[in-house]
Amino acid sequence: MSVSKLQVSRRQRATPYTPRVEALGVSGYSVVNHTILPKGFRRTVEQDYWHLKSHVQLWDVGCQRQVELQGPDAGLLAQLLTPRDLRNAQVGQCLYAPMIDETGGMLNDPVILKLAPDHFWFSIADADMLLWARAFALGRGLDVQVDEPDVWPLAVQGPKSDDLLARVFGDKVRNIGFFKFESCDFQGHDLVVARSGFSKQGGFEIYVDEFSLGTYVWDALWDAGSDLDISPGCPNLIERIEGGLLSYGNEMTRDNNPFECGLEKYCHLGDELDYIGRPALERIAELGHACEIRGLVFSGEPCQAPQFPWPVSIDNDQVGYVTSATWSPRLEQNVSLAMIERDFWQPGTEVVVKAGNDLDYRGVVTSLPME
Amino acid sequence: MSVSKLQVSRRQRATPYTPRVEALGVSGYSVVNHTILPKGFRRTVEQDYWHLKSHVQLWDVGCQRQVELQGPDAGLLAQLLTPRDLRNAQVGQCLYAPMIDETGGMLNDPVILKLAPDHFWFSIADADMLLWARAFALGRGLDVQVDEPDVWPLAVQGPKSDDLLARVFGDKVRNIGFFKFESCDFQGHDLVVARSGFSKQGGFEIYVDEFSLGTYVWDALWDAGSDLDISPGCPNLIERIEGGLLSYGNEMTRDNNPFECGLEKYCHLGDELDYIGRPALERIAELGHACEIRGLVFSGEPCQAPQFPWPVSIDNDQVGYVTSATWSPRLEQNVSLAMIERDFWQPGTEVVVKAGNDLDYRGVVTSLPME
Repeated sequence: MSVSKLQVSRRQRATPYTPRVEALGVSGYSVVNHTILPKGFRRTVEQDYWHLKSHVQLWDVGCQRQVELQGPDAGLLAQLLTPRDLRNAQVGQCLYAPMIDETGGMLNDPVILKLAPDHFWFSIADADMLLWARAFALGRGLDVQVDEPDVWPLAVQGPKSDDLLARVFGDKVRNIGFFKFESCDFQGHDLVVARSGFSKQGGFEIYVDEFSLGTYVWDALWDAGSDLDISPGCPNLIERIEGGLLSYGNEMTRDNNPFECGLEKYCHLGDELDYIGRPALERIAELGHACEIRGLVFSGEPCQAPQFPWPVSIDNDQVGYVTSATWSPRLEQNVSLAMIERDFWQPGTEVVVKAGNDLDYRGVVTSLPME
Repeated sequence: MSVSKLQVSRRQRATPYTPRVEALGVSGYSVVNHTILPKGFRRTVEQDYWHLKSHVQLWDVGCQRQVELQGPDAGLLAQLLTPRDLRNAQVGQCLYAPMIDETGGMLNDPVILKLAPDHFWFSIADADMLLWARAFALGRGLDVQVDEPDVWPLAVQGPKSDDLLARVFGDKVRNIGFFKFESCDFQGHDLVVARSGFSKQGGFEIYVDEFSLGTYVWDALWDAGSDLDISPGCPNLIERIEGGLLSYGNEMTRDNNPFECGLEKYCHLGDELDYIGRPALERIAELGHACEIRGLVFSGEPCQAPQFPWPVSIDNDQVGYVTSATWSPRLEQNVSLAMIERDFWQPGTEVVVKAGNDLDYRGVVTSLPME
């Protein structure tokens, strides 16, 4: 399928950073949570990959909308919404957490920020989890407010992120632990700053909690980074595949359970803990899951990206499917994420990838992240 | 904001008709319900408007996903999900129906198809109402299956629609009433065919209930229309504004109640009838709503479409905002939809529209649909 133009309307929301990314020559957008997400700038994905691994980038990830739970039953609802055990979660902690339905199907994989014992943000991937959380609370009669606050995450990613952020927020940011957040002053305004982000190159996400503040934060970071080769950027397909970072809607849908997505460690099945989908997960754990996400590399010409999934087979029997793929200039082969059946998911297994248009590639299953 | 490129992935789903619209030179897509919606072909929006009013078009509206309710409590849940009184709804009827949350805020405005007393499709606008419906049923403990079936609507719109459909489905389609549906045979396969669609030019929506059947239905209609000047098409901005057809996310969001959207007649406040948001609607009905959707025409140069909303004012006091606007070649002025405050919503009221970039237009409030 050809890459085609996106029409922007009020329904596909701009972010506070849209004027800046437009001025910097954004080449395209995706739509996430009814909000536009830049997909590239003036460089190729390969150039952008090398830059991300060496320098620092500003990413407009305002599309990572927050579902805010607040009130007496906020803690109870937060726990009901995820199989991850939140009982020992601390204020100031970010928790990557699967959300599932009553059949065990994946609905989302947000990062949960515990702001206070009765106050949470779920920083979500592409699905209206506000509707899920609010309707469940309403049906169950819980005493909790569920809303979308005026919060627009801005990501700073890459090895020079600490140096850049220290210039704007002070040296205290250097001491923020991985998947922890702190409140940091920006021109008299307290902002949540977390060491997190959708790359493996290190960095932060700044939860700008007022639309009109967005360009000021962007500009302060941009100006402070002028001697650090700062660049606008966005989640990089090559880097995220190599790093094994899953994208909801691509690697997983409601048809997948969290075990298939490699998220077993975030599913509490020990002592009694009530959450949506627990009985279903127990059955799946007992029976074993049929497939699991893996890396998969394959040589030959750089693959194009028509519509996924692509079938993965051995001796003409399908044993899985590729969900995302691209060419890696570092590994000098194609890299992909694939859902592979149990008997064949062992790293080293040789397979055939059919990349549309009768193009067959010889590939090998790998662990994640890729080396 | 410039129109920019859309990146397609597994997360932004193709429809059964995507290969056909690609072959016919689709110029861009929007994203609705995680699914791509064509936004134009080889003609301008104006040319497309005249064609739609004279001939017949095939629209890929596979993005109108269905939320299917099935089971003993399906009727109960359907009613809880809308303020519209469904007690006299008949099998074979399509019902345009607001969906609201517990504050009265608009969540969606689907067309509900009553397939059987315990079986409904909600043909939805852009929001994950599957999550809303399923979570509410789960929280409330209802005995109902809520799912997204393998159904991909294909719209046939324009004055020659009856002639075209009769060639493929037989003359029985001519007798299908407005907002009624019947089961029609297509090569041995029963398909739901409804007299409905997102234009005021007449036509049908065919609920193709098997992905792999899609291209066959498309091709049969396309071939049958070769002497009818058939064309690919999509919802036409000029036509829908003139016709007063609202788009969820553009004209209305969770911040609007159904009275503001002109949907009072679909809100039952008479005898006891339980649905989500009823107490909130009663309060709003008692206090009166502050603004309501109207048409608004304004002269001058054809307006461009930067980001909405645009402020509407009288004597420099804001009295509303424009949510969608474009140039009408028929009325030879700009036409728009606007949310206008009570004191100023009387048709004929003169206002000023500020269309970004310090461009002021003199405008007049109108009723809907526009003459």
